[in-house]
Amino acid sequence: MRATLLNCTLKRSPQPSNTERLLSVVRAALEREEVTTFTYRVVDENVFEGVASEPQGYGDGWPAIRAAIVSSEILVIATPTWLGQPSSVAKRVLERMDALISETGDDGEPIAYGRVAGFVVTGNEDGAHHVIAELAQGAIDIGFTVPGQAWTYWNMGPGPGPSYGDTDHGHEWSRRTGETAARNLVRTAKALTG
Amino acid sequence: MRATLLNCTLKRSPQPSNTERLLSVVRAALEREEVTTFTYRVVDENVFEGVASEPQGYGDGWPAIRAAIVSSEILVIATPTWLGQPSSVAKRVLERMDALISETGDDGEPIAYGRVAGFVVTGNEDGAHHVIAELAQGAIDIGFTVPGQAWTYWNMGPGPGPSYGDTDHGHEWSRRTGETAARNLVRTAKALTG
Amino acid sequence: MRATLLNCTLKRSPQPSNTERLLSVVRAALEREEVTTFTYRVVDENVFEGVASEPQGYGDGWPAIRAAIVSSEILVIATPTWLGQPSSVAKRVLERMDALISETGDDGEPIAYGRVAGFVVTGNEDGAHHVIAELAQGAIDIGFTVPGQAWTYWNMGPGPGPSYGDTDHGHEWSRRTGETAARNLVRTAKALTG
Amino acid sequence: MRATLLNCTLKRSPQPSNTERLLSVVRAALEREEVTTFTYRVVDENVFEGVASEPQGYGDGWPAIRAAIVSSEILVIATPTWLGQPSSVAKRVLERMDALISETGDDGEPIAYGRVAGFVVTGNEDGAHHVIAELAQGAIDIGFTVPGQAWTYWNMGPGPGPSYGDTDHGHEWSRRTGETAARNLVRTAKALTG
Repeated sequence: MRATLLNCTLKRSPQPSNTERLLSVVRAALEREEVTTFTYRVVDENVFEGVASEPQGYGDGWPAIRAAIVSSEILVIATPTWLGQPSSVAKRVLERMDALISETGDDGEPIAYGRVAGFVVTGNEDGAHHVIAELAQGAIDIGFTVPGQAWTYWNMGPGPGPSYGDTDHGHEWSRRTGETAARNLVRTAKALTG
Repeated sequence: MRATLLNCTLKRSPQPSNTERLLSVVRAALEREEVTTFTYRVVDENVFEGVASEPQGYGDGWPAIRAAIVSSEILVIATPTWLGQPSSVAKRVLERMDALISETGDDGEPIAYGRVAGFVVTGNEDGAHHVIAELAQGAIDIGFTVPGQAWTYWNMGPGPGPSYGDTDHGHEWSRRTGETAARNLVRTAKALTG
Repeated sequence: MRATLLNCTLKRSPQPSNTERLLSVVRAALEREEVTTFTYRVVDENVFEGVASEPQGYGDGWPAIRAAIVSSEILVIATPTWLGQPSSVAKRVLERMDALISETGDDGEPIAYGRVAGFVVTGNEDGAHHVIAELAQGAIDIGFTVPGQAWTYWNMGPGPGPSYGDTDHGHEWSRRTGETAARNLVRTAKALTG
Repeated sequence: MRATLLNCTLKRSPQPSNTERLLSVVRAALEREEVTTFTYRVVDENVFEGVASEPQGYGDGWPAIRAAIVSSEILVIATPTWLGQPSSVAKRVLERMDALISETGDDGEPIAYGRVAGFVVTGNEDGAHHVIAELAQGAIDIGFTVPGQAWTYWNMGPGPGPSYGDTDHGHEWSRRTGETAARNLVRTAKALTG
């Protein structure tokens, strides 16, 4: 079983990414369930804007990411929260994935059918539930199945506060919830592909 | 296989409900797949406000609906759109369902695990995608799995326009999409319970 | 200058309401600016479901609340957060207010024009920004002006945690932000009616 | 009086933009009210990702757009709808504008105070109300005032259908609503700066 993990931070490497830190908890949990993982830090990959699977110009990084997504049973989108909403990088990913709606697999079904999607959110203020709503609705539109409780987050309110990496507050909850998410993703993916 | 269908219109019987009309398309498709369906028009059922499974007062209609939900593999929430958002009746349903987060079945798992949820939306103006996002996020939080493309809608923009029952525009698309939703719900429910 | 404040908690009196506690901070700030305030705990007022200004049955509490709204320059909607979303009581208020879209004042303009709306959100987990988005969009659709930074909230994540009344964490930020909101509401209302 | 209009289409020039077509209706209405307008097609301007006002690298187009925004009393964000949500380009604009939250003017107030924001949405399927909710909440967080009914849209459901430029359906409603939006933006901006 394979999982593609997309870190949609705005920060290019080698800047530290809080989203990567929480995503790594979910990745480790997936790997303990014998899932092979592929992680992309999307902002490093030169993904062009657009709504097509085809390269949108020379050097467009999307086709490689798309190939990973369609070779995986599990997709995890991880994003920071800005103004209570998913990052523009996460939105660009959803836009490129929009093309999958009309692409079909060997069985004539939409290519995302039978695949599952989960979510990881971080932020230095309130916002995760809505970010998950946006990502889940987009993934479901495209054809991914979203298992119950297939997400974790670390956002702390009220008001602007520390980032995930600045404190230990709530890490244990986010870790435990992320491990549950990983288990639910794997279990559901197995049921759908079984 | 059983499905509980909740019509969250604001209109009490015997007023005609556009939401019921589109919901009936999904119900027929479920029944063709040999699913037994139970439909509640929630506004007729005297559901009290609150966030608990227990009766919130004498005559509270929620416990009966809750019993139907937890005896069904499939849940369909159908709602009209007001101001681009789900109805207050749909919100009241989600609030009462909030209690399910901490209730577990015989296997010690959250009681909604292994069940699927889908959505039907109508409205006389734009709004369905967001309504689906709200309902899906709530259902996923509670533990329901939302299959890919497990919804249909009929909303027409721009600006205020006809209701579903006033025109034939787009009925064919909404019907076909609703039949796909029914199929995806049944298939996923079977996979999860298999 | 007058302000109508709607507490959209699910809890009937005399149960303590966290939302009322934070709302009272904004109310005090408005009163210090010489605004006369009218507060309704909507769940106590027997507001019927519907989308009309007229009574929807015998004893419908909406017409009195509507009269307060249209006699006030300022509206504040306060709501708890359930599943990351506004309460069903807040939604019912928006639905009844939907009728204002087509009602006009003496000047022939939509009746909400020239009035301002602000928001107060509480919750025992993440969610405020989205709740504000829902309420603001509804109010703007209806014709209310929403001043910049005309809200405050108290929601703490990650995961379920204490309610506003259970801790002092962040109260100072929520109070200061609520006082700014009150000031921005009054200033904008004066500019619009000046 | 000045207005900055940001077209957040994903399509680079010289591709035709449906969003530009509807935005031009609002621009003409603003100009009839003697507002000087500055329009940016953001995707052509090489705006880097980030959450700061300062250039994020050589050739970053944001500082020029930011200068236009802070020299204008009116901001209009126009976006297409993808998967029922604002474009990634609109999200990138909001992210760069996030820095304005902590920037102050000569009066020591947040720099967006006293400025108004409005919205234009197009799409070949349902989604406008939610897009407006996202943009309005972001603008309000930053300090912009959003006047009542300060938006227009052209989205047609149910299901994928024509784009704005492909049909005349509803153009009259979108135009009239856009003219009302322009009037409300100008009137409110005058009141705030009066």
